[in-house]
Amino acid sequence: MEQSNVYDLIVVGSGAAGLSAAIYAGRYKMKTLVFGDSFGGYTTIAGPIGNYPGYIEVDGFDLMMKMKEQAEALGAQIKDDKVVGVARPDSCFLVTTERGDAYHATAVIFATGSEHRRLGLPNEEALTARGVHYCATCDGPVYGGKTIAMVGGGDSSVKGVNLTAEYAKKIYLITREREIRAEPINQEQMEKLVEAGKVEIILENEVAEIVGTEHLEKVMLRLPFNGSTELVVDGLFIEIGATPRSNLAKDLGVTLDERGYISVTPMMITNMPGVFAAGDITPLFGGFKQDITAAAMGAVAATSAYQYYKIHGNLCASAT
Amino acid sequence: MEQSNVYDLIVVGSGAAGLSAAIYAGRYKMKTLVFGDSFGGYTTIAGPIGNYPGYIEVDGFDLMMKMKEQAEALGAQIKDDKVVGVARPDSCFLVTTERGDAYHATAVIFATGSEHRRLGLPNEEALTARGVHYCATCDGPVYGGKTIAMVGGGDSSVKGVNLTAEYAKKIYLITREREIRAEPINQEQMEKLVEAGKVEIILENEVAEIVGTEHLEKVMLRLPFNGSTELVVDGLFIEIGATPRSNLAKDLGVTLDERGYISVTPMMITNMPGVFAAGDITPLFGGFKQDITAAAMGAVAATSAYQYYKIHGNLCASAT
Repeated sequence: MEQSNVYDLIVVGSGAAGLSAAIYAGRYKMKTLVFGDSFGGYTTIAGPIGNYPGYIEVDGFDLMMKMKEQAEALGAQIKDDKVVGVARPDSCFLVTTERGDAYHATAVIFATGSEHRRLGLPNEEALTARGVHYCATCDGPVYGGKTIAMVGGGDSSVKGVNLTAEYAKKIYLITREREIRAEPINQEQMEKLVEAGKVEIILENEVAEIVGTEHLEKVMLRLPFNGSTELVVDGLFIEIGATPRSNLAKDLGVTLDERGYISVTPMMITNMPGVFAAGDITPLFGGFKQDITAAAMGAVAATSAYQYYKIHGNLCASAT
Repeated sequence: MEQSNVYDLIVVGSGAAGLSAAIYAGRYKMKTLVFGDSFGGYTTIAGPIGNYPGYIEVDGFDLMMKMKEQAEALGAQIKDDKVVGVARPDSCFLVTTERGDAYHATAVIFATGSEHRRLGLPNEEALTARGVHYCATCDGPVYGGKTIAMVGGGDSSVKGVNLTAEYAKKIYLITREREIRAEPINQEQMEKLVEAGKVEIILENEVAEIVGTEHLEKVMLRLPFNGSTELVVDGLFIEIGATPRSNLAKDLGVTLDERGYISVTPMMITNMPGVFAAGDITPLFGGFKQDITAAAMGAVAATSAYQYYKIHGNLCASAT
């Protein structure tokens, strides 16, 4: 086994939480490796960000690139590989990747985030990227001059409406809820689009069926809207929240909460010694998932990992 | 009473926590007023900062100016006045300032931070700024070519040593502890200065007396060092931690912990409805006081204040 595969800290996930953890671990002079199968997480596709304190406006991808450069300048390594297993055969952690490589570390931080929730309808997977989408920022521009439906009653669907309104001809916002709950700054923007007739809101209804063969053709609603349950749209954007990516942690024996998020103390310590978690994968700040909170949690997790490392030293000595 | 003195949210303190709270409250379209008697808090005098995720390096003052501009661009007002009282004569909060003005708000966020701890010796106050200092970044440059003593065994005293080494001829680091505990990156830097003979570390000892009339002349140690308890220095820098600035909250009836910090949930909610806290004034992340954690807590506190405001509406209607 090569020395080069032994680290003080392995961070699983390269979004704001993981990169911030790497920045702090770098300052603590820990030999740190970050794995990210999707660099920067969802932030990279968030478009312009106006609520990261310190930047009046910054592009999400640029912000993540800055964090990456900062982490690397402090000595952290970032690998574009997917972790497929985290085990603990002894006091040292064993991390295996999709490429078939094995790495060892004294401490592990899970910063694996969450992924878009699906409707769970037949045809949904088959038509994904063929009319069915989960990221308005990424795929919205394709629908210039077209009609689309946006599913969801929260902030991300409203932001999706505002964004796609720059391209699309007509947008239907569909939610099971009685009212839309979004950040006022976004809601106000959408209301102007409603007044202008570009956006129509369909409350207390839902997509019951996704229809199409090669490409999405239309959706069927559970209840009639304007006299019909058929809604012909070119694109369907699903923005209904996220589920935690906590399988690796669960398989390792880390305690999750009832919704599948990794249970942590405010110091980002899990039930398992040497295992820490940060960012959207934790329930610390409830449903409030922001770059600034993820970055703070990453910094705290790295600090706790460093305390652990100082007490125990290199637990992978036998692996070298 | 003027309408102009009625706000949805008043933030007491204009450091990273307070300004971040104002940024988020601005996005929530809350009418927000921030009070700061020392704009930007200690960050403004921190010098170059390398651990704020998103900036490889940024001057502390510049970072706070960016946050201020961002908060103002989102509609928050920032006043350079000191809050002297926060009361709750009815469901609406009454905030009074040193200038004699009164303001009303539905919700209050305390982001009052902490202040430098003193040794508590006779002469200490009389000689403050006359040889006795609490901020190496601010006052270090005065001691070009001189001899100084730095008190404290933690990261801030070590950073103080490294910084003043750029100017001073000789630096003594004095701590009651058996060893220095600083960030490795800072400790390594100091060790090079020790090897070079520029810095001497005096462990398990302390300043027993501060001697001087118009200006500091020397300090007396509790135990001899190099055969003498007398240590002739031109400057004495005291970097021994901080005490919470929680008097206003305490007088209002907000629950503090045993060390005087404001007790909060992870959503930054205090025991008193409508009162939230963020940053160094809270014990959420233990002694880990960073701009990134303060900013995250500010964002969370504003979000909780907004939830409160949505439920209760404007509780200062009678004040208008």
